Amino acid sequence: MASRIAVIGAGPSGLAALRAFESARRKGAEVPEIVCYEKQSNWGGLWNYTWRTGLDEFGEPVHGSMYRYLWSNGPKECLEFADYSFEEHFGRPIPSYPPRAVLHDYIAGRVEKSDVRKYCKFNHAVRDVEYDDATGKFTVTVKDLVAKKRFSEEFDYVIVANGHFSTPNVPYFEGVEKFLGRVLHAHDFRCADEFAGKHVLMIGSSYSAEDIGTQCHKYGARKITFSYRTKPMGFDWPEGFEEKPLLTKVVGRTCHFKDGSSVDDVDAIIFCTGYLNHYPFLPDDLRLETRNRLFPPNLYKGIFWEPNPKLMYIGAQDQYYTFNMFDAQAWYARDVVLGRIALPDRAAMHEDSESWVRREEALEDPYQAIDFQTDYVRDLLSATDYPRLDVDRVAELFKEWEHHKVEGILTYRDRSYPSTITGNMAPVHHTVWMKAMDDSLEAFLNQPSQQAAE
Amino acid sequence: MASRIAVIGAGPSGLAALRAFESARRKGAEVPEIVCYEKQSNWGGLWNYTWRTGLDEFGEPVHGSMYRYLWSNGPKECLEFADYSFEEHFGRPIPSYPPRAVLHDYIAGRVEKSDVRKYCKFNHAVRDVEYDDATGKFTVTVKDLVAKKRFSEEFDYVIVANGHFSTPNVPYFEGVEKFLGRVLHAHDFRCADEFAGKHVLMIGSSYSAEDIGTQCHKYGARKITFSYRTKPMGFDWPEGFEEKPLLTKVVGRTCHFKDGSSVDDVDAIIFCTGYLNHYPFLPDDLRLETRNRLFPPNLYKGIFWEPNPKLMYIGAQDQYYTFNMFDAQAWYARDVVLGRIALPDRAAMHEDSESWVRREEALEDPYQAIDFQTDYVRDLLSATDYPRLDVDRVAELFKEWEHHKVEGILTYRDRSYPSTITGNMAPVHHTVWMKAMDDSLEAFLNQPSQQAAE
Repeated sequence: MASRIAVIGAGPSGLAALRAFESARRKGAEVPEIVCYEKQSNWGGLWNYTWRTGLDEFGEPVHGSMYRYLWSNGPKECLEFADYSFEEHFGRPIPSYPPRAVLHDYIAGRVEKSDVRKYCKFNHAVRDVEYDDATGKFTVTVKDLVAKKRFSEEFDYVIVANGHFSTPNVPYFEGVEKFLGRVLHAHDFRCADEFAGKHVLMIGSSYSAEDIGTQCHKYGARKITFSYRTKPMGFDWPEGFEEKPLLTKVVGRTCHFKDGSSVDDVDAIIFCTGYLNHYPFLPDDLRLETRNRLFPPNLYKGIFWEPNPKLMYIGAQDQYYTFNMFDAQAWYARDVVLGRIALPDRAAMHEDSESWVRREEALEDPYQAIDFQTDYVRDLLSATDYPRLDVDRVAELFKEWEHHKVEGILTYRDRSYPSTITGNMAPVHHTVWMKAMDDSLEAFLNQPSQQAAE
Repeated sequence: MASRIAVIGAGPSGLAALRAFESARRKGAEVPEIVCYEKQSNWGGLWNYTWRTGLDEFGEPVHGSMYRYLWSNGPKECLEFADYSFEEHFGRPIPSYPPRAVLHDYIAGRVEKSDVRKYCKFNHAVRDVEYDDATGKFTVTVKDLVAKKRFSEEFDYVIVANGHFSTPNVPYFEGVEKFLGRVLHAHDFRCADEFAGKHVLMIGSSYSAEDIGTQCHKYGARKITFSYRTKPMGFDWPEGFEEKPLLTKVVGRTCHFKDGSSVDDVDAIIFCTGYLNHYPFLPDDLRLETRNRLFPPNLYKGIFWEPNPKLMYIGAQDQYYTFNMFDAQAWYARDVVLGRIALPDRAAMHEDSESWVRREEALEDPYQAIDFQTDYVRDLLSATDYPRLDVDRVAELFKEWEHHKVEGILTYRDRSYPSTITGNMAPVHHTVWMKAMDDSLEAFLNQPSQQAAE
């Protein structure tokens, strides 16, 4: 009997896996039977926007953490698929920082083209994965949410691709239970309009805080206070922003910070405190336990669960690289499954992964972190037939992006970069980001002059 | 080996089960070994207030649906335990409509007194329950959320007591994904202060809509619009309230209704659309599938899962009666487990439950529904040694309460009723509900005159 592989999740990571196997199949390889279980009603993972928060219509935790008006916070040229350029999808070059709907369209375009929908079972939530040493098979237990039926199937391989930006990490702060306003995690943030005229406290100093804070400002928030644990973001914030050390205590609507200072009249507290790697369907012996980091331990090549490498993770690490890194991982995982790449023994795998872990722990700044992940992606790419990706050029773009953010946290999205795939420069968008209030695909793609001509 | 029983959930229903068995044990009966798995860090179920919404600190769905400033919406005399009166707990009679903290204190007081904490494993989420026909045992798989370990244990009986007011039912309405304000389910409502000055649309016409709507009004909401599917609540609403037919469409901040009318400038939409009976840890053959109703089908005596009556549900039905009904169920379930009551065969069980189901389906109004559940509770009580509960008197109180609500939806909580256990009349509260802004136990129990004297 042909071998079978289960892919858990049809977001960018799971779709990369489907695409990788399909690519080999079309070139004549014999590939395993693939079943991709996706909890949501369609593919796209985080990029599949939902207005829902908390629990979904089936009582399952809502996967989506994305909000309205989200625009890419990095150049699209850094995440471009080597086998499917933005230009191929849109028929022409487009600006470098697209809104969510445009990126979703791009991701979906590639997988529609490669016809992998047939592998996907939507509205199917994976409940359990067990491995049987005797048979060498995984039993995957799944709930069909629409039919309200639970069933189990056997597989030879499992790819865990459910993402790790969906389960919020929400620490407790003294007095928060009596705060006289709204408390939410970034995961449940949806509509900046709600915060117009408000004083919003963002706890955290990473991408969520930076992006939700600037977005609330863009849509009319009165005041944004950031609270950092370790160090301030340190951007040259315009009027209306302030950075404070860690929140220590909430009293009524007053928030107190570690340096003894406080702010009054806070309307909402948004926890931008990150996410948990959360795999409730995995038993202890298959489950990755890690904080968000560039190289989680015990994952050979950042993919293979060393105690049982027939279980693979895609996209489980912290990310500069995203879509194209998931591709690099998926192509590598595929080639191991197809027997094109042989895994070393467990000790050798662990020695290799530990060397990456040690290198990560010595990183001193984002520029070194970019180089680290560039080397990691390069290492994966060198072993497979994934189309050529110029990771050195991508790394340069990441570094330019970091500089551009420092030059202007509200203006960096007005920059343009060349595609590393086609070489063509992105056009400047018709409207600067701070004034682009409509985040629809149509508004983004239609130059005002074109609209006028229609 | 002594038999073992698993209780899933340490809310009012699960605690009733622990109390029932402990009561028998103290009278000399030999009772099974009991393990109660509770997802939260303490007991009390819904009454254990949490500021968290969505997912908790372990990534588990938040159980709590309660909000700040919640006061009982029925007389406490209707839910009083027959074996532990309010007067015994508080040392004196207290008013009839206590806030949440007072009811939580009361529930906890009884179980502290009966020393059942030793049976509880907190921060333990049940993941799976399987029944093995060959051994006649259940295997319960549990995640220890703190230790991050999953384990399985065998049991002879399982009591499902995880409640059914925790998993929101959230239907879709056209345009809601583009509403320019906040959208939430009552499950995630916490703090009415947030809605001061706002126009809030409540979708629904049952207890959540009524209570959250009046509470938002109490704490300063500008306008409350209710939207009903079947019929309006029909209370004599004061200025600031309006009832509309079902929402059909949301456009910007305007909400359109089935009668063609609309309201503008809506700030928030609160889905008061009920909850799902949700048992993600149960396989198809053990899982109750039901809407919220007074007599879910296939549950003999509203408790025993007819295809396998070693699996019992407590509190799975819609409720007029609450704490004392859970007691009646728990005592009955206990006596079946202890062999004091024999179950009839499956056909006879089903015939009995179907007669209740048919009777429920013919009910015409709340007064008949109260009589129905009164008869149901009476039937259970007649078979066990649960202390005498005068259900006819309780039914009268329920009907008085219904009348009092009609007389004044903002003033009914200022009424007093006599205890059916002690016979003593409840004192009038020191402050009318509309002016009682502090919902703490201390504020409720301390008459202002007493405070002045301290």
